[in-house]
Amino acid sequence: MISQHLPVIDSINFKNIHKLLINFIKEEVKRTGVNKIVLGLSGGIDSAVSCYLAVSALGSDNVAAILMPYKASSSKSLEDAMLVVKNLNINHYIIDITDQIDVYFDKIGSNKSYYNNNSEYNKSNFNFEDKSKESNYELKLRMGNKMARERMSILYDRSHILNSLVLGTSNKSELLLGYGTIYGDMASALNPIGDIYKTQIYQLAKHLGVPESLINKAPSADLWQDQSDEKELGFTYKLADEIMFLLVDKMYKPEVVISMGYDEDIVHKVYNKIKKSQFKRRQPLIAKVSQRTINIDFRYLRDWI
Amino acid sequence: MISQHLPVIDSINFKNIHKLLINFIKEEVKRTGVNKIVLGLSGGIDSAVSCYLAVSALGSDNVAAILMPYKASSSKSLEDAMLVVKNLNINHYIIDITDQIDVYFDKIGSNKSYYNNNSEYNKSNFNFEDKSKESNYELKLRMGNKMARERMSILYDRSHILNSLVLGTSNKSELLLGYGTIYGDMASALNPIGDIYKTQIYQLAKHLGVPESLINKAPSADLWQDQSDEKELGFTYKLADEIMFLLVDKMYKPEVVISMGYDEDIVHKVYNKIKKSQFKRRQPLIAKVSQRTINIDFRYLRDWI
Repeated sequence: MISQHLPVIDSINFKNIHKLLINFIKEEVKRTGVNKIVLGLSGGIDSAVSCYLAVSALGSDNVAAILMPYKASSSKSLEDAMLVVKNLNINHYIIDITDQIDVYFDKIGSNKSYYNNNSEYNKSNFNFEDKSKESNYELKLRMGNKMARERMSILYDRSHILNSLVLGTSNKSELLLGYGTIYGDMASALNPIGDIYKTQIYQLAKHLGVPESLINKAPSADLWQDQSDEKELGFTYKLADEIMFLLVDKMYKPEVVISMGYDEDIVHKVYNKIKKSQFKRRQPLIAKVSQRTINIDFRYLRDWI
Repeated sequence: MISQHLPVIDSINFKNIHKLLINFIKEEVKRTGVNKIVLGLSGGIDSAVSCYLAVSALGSDNVAAILMPYKASSSKSLEDAMLVVKNLNINHYIIDITDQIDVYFDKIGSNKSYYNNNSEYNKSNFNFEDKSKESNYELKLRMGNKMARERMSILYDRSHILNSLVLGTSNKSELLLGYGTIYGDMASALNPIGDIYKTQIYQLAKHLGVPESLINKAPSADLWQDQSDEKELGFTYKLADEIMFLLVDKMYKPEVVISMGYDEDIVHKVYNKIKKSQFKRRQPLIAKVSQRTINIDFRYLRDWI
């Protein structure tokens, strides 16, 4: 029998966490001299929870939801996102990303002249793209990443127009597993739920009053039809979250977690995913040649008060 | 008389810096299990210097340059980028970004239905976009940011196909001043020139043999016609680099730098630009609710060895 270690967000500590998260949003927004938030609303539980928190912090007048469907996105996703918009009575914009995505993939797929178009200078050691040989899964991955980055790009453009900050909606499970797109959905100005595991997001969602329709569906990035996070990852969030809590928060070694009764393969899989995705959670590495290098030994605010 | 403080890259220390930068690229690429680099080649001096360093480190077979012109980009930029491709005999791809950019701005400019398309739920406190009222400069800025992020997105797609890393090409002056697009040109896996001021980039370029045509033109992001970094910033890199060296590397207070004879307005302008752009040089802020929070007290490799 494995007992539960990950703290549960019950009705008592919900009040404290809620207060803390609301203050975080309030203070960070105030500190930057704006009073508004934009966020991408996907129809999933994470962005819904972030949206509820933003409205609690700033009021519905100061939150704008951007809905950015692709032609293959599920219509249920858009409906669920609109349910949040309606319930919270917030501003919203629907910006379809199909054209921008398709024009890129059509161009590079159908017109080889975009590649190596000056054959005089071409070498052969790179594997040049050949869509026909590419596995369907690889192409889906690439399209999913392109979509995530297009959405980030639109959110930042919206935040510029609306004089507001981009709210992040990645949870701690995704961030640790690297189950997201660097400079895509993992990019934001501030993120109220980045320290909250997926299992806890569900608990938080119930206390916040997020519609059941969003809570009762399988987690999915909705980058293609019938995508399922847990199928793709090869384990459930419930199990992975317990393992990550022990590895990361409790600082137990993998062997210790295994000795507690957790499946050896899954512990190693989770551990390796955290290690291998570290590049997604840090700034670009800069070659140090001076006394004070950005992100090595020059880090405002530590330096400049 | 103001004496020069910023170290000059002369022929003696060039050898050391060159060796250090080459080893940095070699080791970081090796560490991630790949052996190739992709980078965006703009026709400017920074990406050219990065490209020369990458070829010195990995050989011309293992570097791919991606040229990503927009319809308004100067043809001189493309010619200069091709000069680098030719001189280094590297793989290159030309991917025009005009369609992806224009389809976005045309859509949101001409078709208001993309906004607030469900008027039932709309509020009035946000300033909704009205292109006719928007200043030309604001629109240029937005388009420039969108282009920078589209290029990042393409570079990451290319790096996926080519099983390679994205090389950053932002110099220390740009990074400190925040003169770049967050999650756009400031995004990369590794950056060999991020600790080298623009003034020093010119010195480095000469030692590396970068064509004169790239060295002898005014610095420009080439996001619109006749754009000039120095006109836009309101000071020269030569002056700003000296001031930044004293403020950042020497850790002098602004008053001390002013007392050394530097123009008070420009010192404050530079100091404030560094402070205000800090958000572009860090990871998204996460609300801390657990014992171990990503980028606060959980930072591999420090934690996980």
